[in-house]
Amino acid sequence: MPVFTILVYDVGEKRVARVLKTARKYLHWVQNSVLEGEITDANLKRLKEELKKISKEEEDSFIFYTFRTERYYSREIYGIKKGGHDMFL
Amino acid sequence: MPVFTILVYDVGEKRVARVLKTARKYLHWVQNSVLEGEITDANLKRLKEELKKISKEEEDSFIFYTFRTERYYSREIYGIKKGGHDMFL
Repeated sequence: MPVFTILVYDVGEKRVARVLKTARKYLHWVQNSVLEGEITDANLKRLKEELKKISKEEEDSFIFYTFRTERYYSREIYGIKKGGHDMFL
Repeated sequence: MPVFTILVYDVGEKRVARVLKTARKYLHWVQNSVLEGEITDANLKRLKEELKKISKEEEDSFIFYTFRTERYYSREIYGIKKGGHDMFL
C-alpha cells in the first residue's frame, strides 16, 4: 500500500541539483526543497538509499514525513502555488 | 484537540525573518523553511492570519500540512538534525 510522503531537505549547494533530480523520480516537487506524493515502501527505501549515496551525512539534512492514511490529512496552500501537479486540497 | 502541523514556506528574502519569527511563536523550527508541531485549531487560524498580514500573496508560498492523528505518522531524519527540539521518531 503506498504511503503519503513529504520530503524536506537542506543540502549543500553543490548537491541540490542531483538531490532534486533523484527525488523527482519518486515524488512531486511542490516548493523549494519540498517534495511530496504517494510512494510504495519499496520505492521509499530505494529513494533513501539513492539519496544517501549522493549526499554528505555530516552536512546535509533530510526529513521524511510518512503517513499511512490520508484520512486525517489535509493540505492548504496560501499564496502562489509552485508545484506542477494538482493535489486534492 | 491539537493537530500535528508541518509548515513549509518559500517567501521573498525581505520577509523571511518576519515570517520565521511569527511562525516560531506557534511551531518548532526543524529545518530551512520548515516548522512543525502540535497546534490548536484556534492558534492555527491565528498563525495563518498573522502570516497573511506580513506576506505578499502574489509572491510568497506557504503549505500547511495538518494531521488529526499521529497514529499513522512517522518522521525520519537522515543526516544532521537541525531543529532544536526532540521529536519521537
